[in-house]
Amino acid sequence: MRPPPTQFQPHDPAYAERVRTSFARQQAMGLIGAELVVVEPGFTEIHLANRPEITQQHGFVHGGIVGMIADNAGGFAANTLTAADTSVLTVEYKLNLVAPADGERLVARGEVVKPGRTLLVTRAEVFAVKDEQWTLCAVMQQTIMAMHGKKERTHGSAQEGARHS
Amino acid sequence: MRPPPTQFQPHDPAYAERVRTSFARQQAMGLIGAELVVVEPGFTEIHLANRPEITQQHGFVHGGIVGMIADNAGGFAANTLTAADTSVLTVEYKLNLVAPADGERLVARGEVVKPGRTLLVTRAEVFAVKDEQWTLCAVMQQTIMAMHGKKERTHGSAQEGARHS
Amino acid sequence: MRPPPTQFQPHDPAYAERVRTSFARQQAMGLIGAELVVVEPGFTEIHLANRPEITQQHGFVHGGIVGMIADNAGGFAANTLTAADTSVLTVEYKLNLVAPADGERLVARGEVVKPGRTLLVTRAEVFAVKDEQWTLCAVMQQTIMAMHGKKERTHGSAQEGARHS
Amino acid sequence: MRPPPTQFQPHDPAYAERVRTSFARQQAMGLIGAELVVVEPGFTEIHLANRPEITQQHGFVHGGIVGMIADNAGGFAANTLTAADTSVLTVEYKLNLVAPADGERLVARGEVVKPGRTLLVTRAEVFAVKDEQWTLCAVMQQTIMAMHGKKERTHGSAQEGARHS
Repeated sequence: MRPPPTQFQPHDPAYAERVRTSFARQQAMGLIGAELVVVEPGFTEIHLANRPEITQQHGFVHGGIVGMIADNAGGFAANTLTAADTSVLTVEYKLNLVAPADGERLVARGEVVKPGRTLLVTRAEVFAVKDEQWTLCAVMQQTIMAMHGKKERTHGSAQEGARHS
Repeated sequence: MRPPPTQFQPHDPAYAERVRTSFARQQAMGLIGAELVVVEPGFTEIHLANRPEITQQHGFVHGGIVGMIADNAGGFAANTLTAADTSVLTVEYKLNLVAPADGERLVARGEVVKPGRTLLVTRAEVFAVKDEQWTLCAVMQQTIMAMHGKKERTHGSAQEGARHS
Repeated sequence: MRPPPTQFQPHDPAYAERVRTSFARQQAMGLIGAELVVVEPGFTEIHLANRPEITQQHGFVHGGIVGMIADNAGGFAANTLTAADTSVLTVEYKLNLVAPADGERLVARGEVVKPGRTLLVTRAEVFAVKDEQWTLCAVMQQTIMAMHGKKERTHGSAQEGARHS
Repeated sequence: MRPPPTQFQPHDPAYAERVRTSFARQQAMGLIGAELVVVEPGFTEIHLANRPEITQQHGFVHGGIVGMIADNAGGFAANTLTAADTSVLTVEYKLNLVAPADGERLVARGEVVKPGRTLLVTRAEVFAVKDEQWTLCAVMQQTIMAMHGKKERTHGSAQEGARHS
């Protein structure tokens, strides 16, 4: 029998506020109008209302925007499990675009699959919601690095500093 | 000995104009200020000037924006090799972020690695250019699908229609 | 609310026998001693007993072997949903190795995430089972191509013919 | 202008012997008959003669075997640049299979793209050589972790210990 999903215990009791503050610092999320709606241990959900500015000519959300919220949903899910003095960065991610992002809004769900001390592996799914019908439009698998003892910086790279996407 | 890089022969003599027109249709590229600077058979180069709107708080370009131009550089490189009546879509891509996108501008280079009839495999590299010093900040490997006999639509997915990122 | 997992309806009522026959043709699976234990619509499970021939010096299963059964679990999961005259091939996969493959046996589970007509996206997880304790040791995200009207060939590539890994 | 490829300076003057010793420890490489032919700073080349034991029914090398040598070529390329007391492990890799592995032998070339202190990003290409004609059959992008101050162990995972594939 397959074991039940891991129940994650956050190291930082104030993880939710810390993650929401980090999200709020991301200008790019504000630019596209993304909202961090759910923050739980090892899980986050980002919502994005469809707007002309982020669409393709037929009104679907641009794939690059889909990738941005998938990457962030996974990265912030990892961030919920790190210590208060630890920031995270995206090492890499792999994204499959499986259907047009056709809906009034997108919902990106990120979850931690493996919480290692240095590296955390996450997955994300992005759904397009149209007339309350959910359509899976993208799936992602991602590697996140925890930068222990480094204050949050909302940019950087796997090589230096820390970042979310 | 390793063979020399493939010399690509475009099927469509008007490939460059077709690809530039497709790029121009992408609102998202205009939104971030990206320019398609080089279009050659199996190769494209996209430039992006650093601007506050696309940065993180420390002035580096947001990783999600880096991914957008990497994805497009690869997708348009594939598009240079397709027939005039064929559009392309991103099936999937894998992106490693290897350094902060710290510079006055970014240069994304996409090249076709394997031009199959239905699927094309591409790679892209993104450099941050600061005081004319080039720093590699991201590398991507991508799968593109050719939609034969389908007119360009600048969105869609691997399942339906055609898209660039 | 998140929608329930898709219930897959196989096109081929004899999908299970077809998939088991295809698996049996794979010499490499026999070489390493892998068994196809579960075959359901959109899902397969491959078991592999740990043996000295497939281990590293400390008795863990070699990562390359882990990748082989993950790739096959996803590919055969896709194959359960194709028509009787359709074979499948691995376009690409991305594998994260998250823990040593330390156990008496490995269990690889593959499931279809998005069943497109031409492309199917799958995921796989590989567990190491030791004293009936399950440890996740690898996760994979994969793109599979359906070759309609092509008889099974147990090799090939995304460009020509058909294959399982 | 694009910068020239980085010239890598190995930290360990005895890198070649160290890497060859590590390769020799890998039973799985011996099992399939792979040879480490070229070892240079940031680059390795693995050759594999086609034999019935590693083929599919049509005589092509099994895709899982292709993945094993691609993963190893990238991992050992990274290992050439680490210190004498540092071992490496595969965090993850993404492999595109682009043509059948049809030839008398395969040649896998791995190169370091970004040598970070903790993480190294590599790429690999696998060619099938038939009548001295080279055909690209797979391309890989990979993340490798350097385990500083840890003696070589030829297995393990990104979470514990060290490994090559």
